Amino acid sequence: MNMTDSKLTGVAGELYEAARNLPIVSPHGHCEASWFSQNSAFPNPAALLVQPDHYVFRMLYSLGIALSDLGIGEGSEEKDPREVFRLFASNWHLFLGTPSRTWLEYSLREVFSIDEQLSAPTADAIYDHLATCLAQEYFRPRALFDRFNIELLATTDGALAPLDDHKSVSDSEWAGRIVPTFRPDSVINPTHQHFCNDVKALGELTNTDVGSYSSYLEALRKRRAFFISCGATATDHDVPDLHTEFLNSTDCEALFGGALAGTLSAQDALRFHGHMLIEMAQMSVEDGLVMQIHAGATRSTNRQVFEKFGSDKGADIPKPTNWVAGLDALLNRVGNASEFTLIAFTLDESAYARELAPMAGHWPALKLGPPWWFHDSENGIARYFDRVVETAGYWNLAGFNDDTRAFTSIPARHDLWRRCVAIHLAEQISRGRMGIEDARRVNTWLARDAAIAAYKLEV
Amino acid sequence: MNMTDSKLTGVAGELYEAARNLPIVSPHGHCEASWFSQNSAFPNPAALLVQPDHYVFRMLYSLGIALSDLGIGEGSEEKDPREVFRLFASNWHLFLGTPSRTWLEYSLREVFSIDEQLSAPTADAIYDHLATCLAQEYFRPRALFDRFNIELLATTDGALAPLDDHKSVSDSEWAGRIVPTFRPDSVINPTHQHFCNDVKALGELTNTDVGSYSSYLEALRKRRAFFISCGATATDHDVPDLHTEFLNSTDCEALFGGALAGTLSAQDALRFHGHMLIEMAQMSVEDGLVMQIHAGATRSTNRQVFEKFGSDKGADIPKPTNWVAGLDALLNRVGNASEFTLIAFTLDESAYARELAPMAGHWPALKLGPPWWFHDSENGIARYFDRVVETAGYWNLAGFNDDTRAFTSIPARHDLWRRCVAIHLAEQISRGRMGIEDARRVNTWLARDAAIAAYKLEV
Amino acid sequence: MNMTDSKLTGVAGELYEAARNLPIVSPHGHCEASWFSQNSAFPNPAALLVQPDHYVFRMLYSLGIALSDLGIGEGSEEKDPREVFRLFASNWHLFLGTPSRTWLEYSLREVFSIDEQLSAPTADAIYDHLATCLAQEYFRPRALFDRFNIELLATTDGALAPLDDHKSVSDSEWAGRIVPTFRPDSVINPTHQHFCNDVKALGELTNTDVGSYSSYLEALRKRRAFFISCGATATDHDVPDLHTEFLNSTDCEALFGGALAGTLSAQDALRFHGHMLIEMAQMSVEDGLVMQIHAGATRSTNRQVFEKFGSDKGADIPKPTNWVAGLDALLNRVGNASEFTLIAFTLDESAYARELAPMAGHWPALKLGPPWWFHDSENGIARYFDRVVETAGYWNLAGFNDDTRAFTSIPARHDLWRRCVAIHLAEQISRGRMGIEDARRVNTWLARDAAIAAYKLEV
Repeated sequence: MNMTDSKLTGVAGELYEAARNLPIVSPHGHCEASWFSQNSAFPNPAALLVQPDHYVFRMLYSLGIALSDLGIGEGSEEKDPREVFRLFASNWHLFLGTPSRTWLEYSLREVFSIDEQLSAPTADAIYDHLATCLAQEYFRPRALFDRFNIELLATTDGALAPLDDHKSVSDSEWAGRIVPTFRPDSVINPTHQHFCNDVKALGELTNTDVGSYSSYLEALRKRRAFFISCGATATDHDVPDLHTEFLNSTDCEALFGGALAGTLSAQDALRFHGHMLIEMAQMSVEDGLVMQIHAGATRSTNRQVFEKFGSDKGADIPKPTNWVAGLDALLNRVGNASEFTLIAFTLDESAYARELAPMAGHWPALKLGPPWWFHDSENGIARYFDRVVETAGYWNLAGFNDDTRAFTSIPARHDLWRRCVAIHLAEQISRGRMGIEDARRVNTWLARDAAIAAYKLEV
Repeated sequence: MNMTDSKLTGVAGELYEAARNLPIVSPHGHCEASWFSQNSAFPNPAALLVQPDHYVFRMLYSLGIALSDLGIGEGSEEKDPREVFRLFASNWHLFLGTPSRTWLEYSLREVFSIDEQLSAPTADAIYDHLATCLAQEYFRPRALFDRFNIELLATTDGALAPLDDHKSVSDSEWAGRIVPTFRPDSVINPTHQHFCNDVKALGELTNTDVGSYSSYLEALRKRRAFFISCGATATDHDVPDLHTEFLNSTDCEALFGGALAGTLSAQDALRFHGHMLIEMAQMSVEDGLVMQIHAGATRSTNRQVFEKFGSDKGADIPKPTNWVAGLDALLNRVGNASEFTLIAFTLDESAYARELAPMAGHWPALKLGPPWWFHDSENGIARYFDRVVETAGYWNLAGFNDDTRAFTSIPARHDLWRRCVAIHLAEQISRGRMGIEDARRVNTWLARDAAIAAYKLEV
Repeated sequence: MNMTDSKLTGVAGELYEAARNLPIVSPHGHCEASWFSQNSAFPNPAALLVQPDHYVFRMLYSLGIALSDLGIGEGSEEKDPREVFRLFASNWHLFLGTPSRTWLEYSLREVFSIDEQLSAPTADAIYDHLATCLAQEYFRPRALFDRFNIELLATTDGALAPLDDHKSVSDSEWAGRIVPTFRPDSVINPTHQHFCNDVKALGELTNTDVGSYSSYLEALRKRRAFFISCGATATDHDVPDLHTEFLNSTDCEALFGGALAGTLSAQDALRFHGHMLIEMAQMSVEDGLVMQIHAGATRSTNRQVFEKFGSDKGADIPKPTNWVAGLDALLNRVGNASEFTLIAFTLDESAYARELAPMAGHWPALKLGPPWWFHDSENGIARYFDRVVETAGYWNLAGFNDDTRAFTSIPARHDLWRRCVAIHLAEQISRGRMGIEDARRVNTWLARDAAIAAYKLEV
């Protein structure tokens, strides 16, 4: 038995039952639109469950298993996926107590009807069963999407992304709604390794001379409009060090020039990025795109792993983040605009009660995203409710994001969230803090409606 | 049903029943002495429950309701209070999960005998009922004070406050004990907008030439003596950025001169304020006033709201605070003096277990104030006990403060505290950490006696 | 009744019973090897329970009791231990809610068969009973060690320690295993008050000219080898301000010279210490010693107490610690070496979920030490499991340390840990996060096996 298999009883059970079959709204994540445009079978169990999931391989790596033995990195294509899966299965105990285990057990049971525990002895049989499943039409991306009852799935796409797959999906007869999200890190953050090239490419894509700051802004506006025309309702921003600052036009030109020339100091690069976040916010006021900020990840802290295996390999670690100082300039420009929505995601839980809940409980523009990354877990969600709700209430929350590139974990993650919501609300009732009618309203709000509202997804 | 209505059972119920009718000691808060000297009726339900309560209107503002529609700011006097109350009542669901809802429900039920939920349909009837109540003698400030069983209420008063209302109350035949608290921010913090004027006025009030640093200290001493003569037992200090530093006499003169001339850098202003906190502590050693430090609020972070509506409008947001470094110079001057009491209030809960509890568990002078502001809630109190008691014990705590300007919330806030104490102690017993006799002793201590002791209120 | 006396029921009870009688592994602490080489009786109850325990006397001091009245400091030998014990016993209520009370109650009951509560009336009888016990062979250090079922006890020893007592113990016929731990703070941290003298003495002890940086490293290598020959498996490092930085050889020579000359700036002293931590880590890769870092204590914050009574007098207070930045240089040198083990101890709990768990869940070399110092308590342990396990799992944890100089508290502390583990696991089962078989495995792992593995203690 695991959590997702356990029966919630009493009021929690009633609330969970009311929410569990609601459609899934997935307004932020990292699935590929191409999965749904091509609708190809997932290649094999290791490629589905192990290799794309940095939650999984980082844990194995931390306990002495080489990434290359998991078929990650150069030459990985030659690695037998069955061997990879065996290695994973025989180390399944390492995941005890982690949400990865909860999600994977749910996926295996609910998606693939597997009741046995992963282990060295069961690895081959489970591998074979999974491989047989994956070969069937019933387990292709579109079929799973429909089976998962996903109402909407947002992808995350670089500013230059052609969005052909999104167009292809929406032109197809398949009814699934896959929308892009505008993630312009590479064209607004001068420390991004492709900044110069990508700004140039942005100019070409939009038929705009990006030689001046003002025409660069114009190119960004056009690109946002293109994303909107493909269904986007939101932007997303990775902000390692949270800083916003509104520069005068002389500084804008100068720093933009320095950024293109690659001559900015780290401090000036931070200032330019901080200014561009405000420009993005101001464009959001104009064009209505919801702005997401994911702040506080120190990326690729293990340089040896980065050099050999690239980014997103489990060495991104949170850092303390000061939200009050960091968002000061941005919010004082546009935070009182109620047509603007900024959704904040933190990796620093100490900011929940100290900064983010008080800020969300004041600024009309600010909403709080759900627990992110390491904190998107049973205890993490409980801490979030504990620290956030008393000050921000429920209506300043943006509902749930699964934020995953592990497609079959999507229903598992939403299920865990809905269970945690039900447990939270049942406890609120038992403490006399609300009645069942109010709890039912909040239950539906958190399971689906809050995401629809925060991301402006109502059609 | 809500929490304050819920029955606590078993040991928690027994402990709560033992504490619930103890007199209320309110040693720190923001009620007006004039309410009790004049004893006028509260004007109307909106002016009583909505407009003075920044917990309430900040939440409404965060969800898109204009402050002007709530009768706040210029022209607000023309706003129909019934309209304001309707707007508030019809958005009552926004407060689900917040302590504001718990406090207001308690007040409506216990003070005004209203059992119905606030909502758009019930707004008018509740408004009428409240208005009828407020017109009665039975709901005037003194009657409520007596009915609430308040043993002592401390106000918070600027250094220049004439304290006429306090004198008027103590000269009256009414027995209520209202004492002032000396809050000298405007005459010791050079960044205060009225610093120069207020120092000058301080000199006039005390017939002291404040041209030199030493005579300025003398004026402060005299003013403290005046407050003591009016019943004060404590000072209070708003310390946005916690820093203390003992300056030599040359620096004192130079920085004091610069402060009066308005020429100090931000850093020197901080140093001067940090030195003056030590002077205040040293005067406390002499005159016995208990010193309170409320540290870590970034004030008025929304400049547009500040310019239009002024301070205390819901945009004060906590910041990280380093208590070890911040109090180092002060405690090393007077922290070993057991006749001195310093009560620390934090908005940064990460300091509870990391800094404040270890410090309170060592320094003879240091006591910990109860959870402050955003943290004065059911979960906030639970987190406080969880993180503080194991290291600081119960005898280094200063009991409870309601810290409110919402008068009718005073019994609600003390009631919530007493419930949380009872729940905490019942859990301690169930874990085998103390027996019922010890729990009874701690129960009374936290409900009343700790505040009496920490604030030297025994008469 | 107190916690350690309370019956755990159901699954928690079953798990606790399975762990409670496992041998105690104590891989880090501050007992003296001389206790076991000499095997003298402990002198008296005050010298056993009050005077060496800074948890105990700091609390008494914080509530106004002079350290000199507790027989601490100069002239303390003249203090009647019975008077000290009476003062302690009559203030026993001050410890309500603290782990000190839990540990002491356990010790009195389990070690000395005392069932009565400490209090003024019972002080003398309990003192007499304890004194009678201490005079018996059965209560001498070796007998207690055997009775406590201690499998291994590690002491903490300066780099210059002769380790004669360790040798004497291992040469004796007594079977107890007492191993030293290499703690080189005074020879690698230039801010240590004895740095120059101790480096010189290190050279003499190792017959090495420490005039150059490279020969200084050689002397350290030799000293580590000596510790290993006496049974050491680990080093330990007190790191007040966590910083690591790899210096080039020119800087090494220059800063080492400056350190010996006493001319380094605070910043350069920090850099040199930060570099030496990396050298220590690199030597660990070579010689296999497990490296422990205890970071973030601000030592002796009360200067008056320090001058009069010395260090370790209850005024060491935690500070915020940034583990990602602080360990960056060290981990990027040797963190991928799976033959290297670094165990991190934090006093800043905000780093548990934000930094340490994600880091331990990635770096092969990094393990997390148990809750340290102020956090080694029932609630502290619960917070640790809550924040750490979901991201780091159980296999990146180093088990338990008692870290005490209060010998009779060792079984009490391990018992509390084992109770907390049982409670945690029972809750995991009840939430459906693991089954009983897995819980049993984790239970034994956390009670004993994790410490054996992390500290390479398997014989």
